[in-house]
Amino acid sequence: MIRIALLGFGNLGNSLCNALNNNNYTSIIQIYNKSNLRLNDSLKNIPFTTNLTELKPADIYIIAIPDDAIGSFSERLPFKNELVVHTSGGVAMDVLSKKNRKGVFYPLQTFSKSREANFNKIPICVEASKDSDLSLLRNLGEALSENVVEINSEKRKKLHLAAVFVNNFVNHMYTIGHEILQNEELPFKLLQPLIFETAQKIEDLNPFDAQTGPAKRKDKNTIEKHLHLLTEGPYKELYQLLTQSIQATHGKKL
Amino acid sequence: MIRIALLGFGNLGNSLCNALNNNNYTSIIQIYNKSNLRLNDSLKNIPFTTNLTELKPADIYIIAIPDDAIGSFSERLPFKNELVVHTSGGVAMDVLSKKNRKGVFYPLQTFSKSREANFNKIPICVEASKDSDLSLLRNLGEALSENVVEINSEKRKKLHLAAVFVNNFVNHMYTIGHEILQNEELPFKLLQPLIFETAQKIEDLNPFDAQTGPAKRKDKNTIEKHLHLLTEGPYKELYQLLTQSIQATHGKKL
Repeated sequence: MIRIALLGFGNLGNSLCNALNNNNYTSIIQIYNKSNLRLNDSLKNIPFTTNLTELKPADIYIIAIPDDAIGSFSERLPFKNELVVHTSGGVAMDVLSKKNRKGVFYPLQTFSKSREANFNKIPICVEASKDSDLSLLRNLGEALSENVVEINSEKRKKLHLAAVFVNNFVNHMYTIGHEILQNEELPFKLLQPLIFETAQKIEDLNPFDAQTGPAKRKDKNTIEKHLHLLTEGPYKELYQLLTQSIQATHGKKL
Repeated sequence: MIRIALLGFGNLGNSLCNALNNNNYTSIIQIYNKSNLRLNDSLKNIPFTTNLTELKPADIYIIAIPDDAIGSFSERLPFKNELVVHTSGGVAMDVLSKKNRKGVFYPLQTFSKSREANFNKIPICVEASKDSDLSLLRNLGEALSENVVEINSEKRKKLHLAAVFVNNFVNHMYTIGHEILQNEELPFKLLQPLIFETAQKIEDLNPFDAQTGPAKRKDKNTIEKHLHLLTEGPYKELYQLLTQSIQATHGKKL
């Protein structure tokens, strides 16, 4: 049984806590959060503290707090030579205080409190400075997911950048689609089958090969009509730049 | 039984043909294409022609050819007062020749020859100048899908614009993610659970509320790090403009 202290209880902390708590190989022995919080019924037996000096011995201390705070927070931990890991895609392992053994446990997914995460398919990216810690993090990952991969800080940064494109920026495209339909009093659910199929198609096809549309086929007529429909502002500029980018990407490889 | 002549056999024509042929309420009585083609076994009993003067009587003539060619093609049809519809999101109904009765039958989905389309959930947008033709197109739509909606040419243009954002532009985001991972020799499948969850999340959540990431939370540190990782070119410009657009969208409504 791997004993875990979970430090931070945002969207990721919450999802991770539920997954690690419903697991035969892991046990959350304590939750820390800087402010008080109400744990739901399934978690209410887990000891909770807002005081770092009250932290109990654990095999792994998992930090799940905003990126900018990770370094200074790790300095404030009142112990040394323990395994302390963070859960961030964009932060290097070396940001952690050197007084403890360092590691990273990064589940590559978007988490929200309102949706239960199924960790089984989520890639878990692990890194550690000591081999024995890497094994422990692998075991922890495998208790949750069938897809545990060792990835160093340099590569993880790039992976996180790619995740911003396929998650944050994609969601912004959905937001723009939603706004366009709302202005026409059309229901957003009209777009949902298209959105799913777009995501599903690239299970079989390389996204480069899956590209379609007026930009790809250089259909100036349709592009002009679309630009005419968009009022001046960021969405029009985005349409233009995305069209150029698709043409540049496909021009250079075709 | 609705008798259909299918005029054009690209990705959409092909998908539509399979769906209409496997249906108790519809019958493809003829396929026209400007060049010869090899129909697969399940379609090979359908009469085929490359000659418009050989077209047989049908209840609906469905044009499924590139947008730019629809108008002039409809002028060349050697009959009048028949129901002739096109299948394009971005083309107004009035582009069709006035010598026949006009209509639109627009399935809102992305089609490819390598993937079989399940029409059942695909929204089918219909429009016609005569009420009786609209009913017939509704019946045709309902033979394929549980989601048939009447949408006029003005609204359909906007819907098509929104579709470009949530399909073409989203796929370009996937392409960029793919390229970033490829440069690091990381497998694209690492991003797939994130891509699916991003698409699935907005079944429950408005995409505006689902937005997360460094742009939304104005995390300058991470944004700077990401820009530093991107070489000069359209992807860097896109990152900047998408970040600005997310901040403008969320700034104006928060």
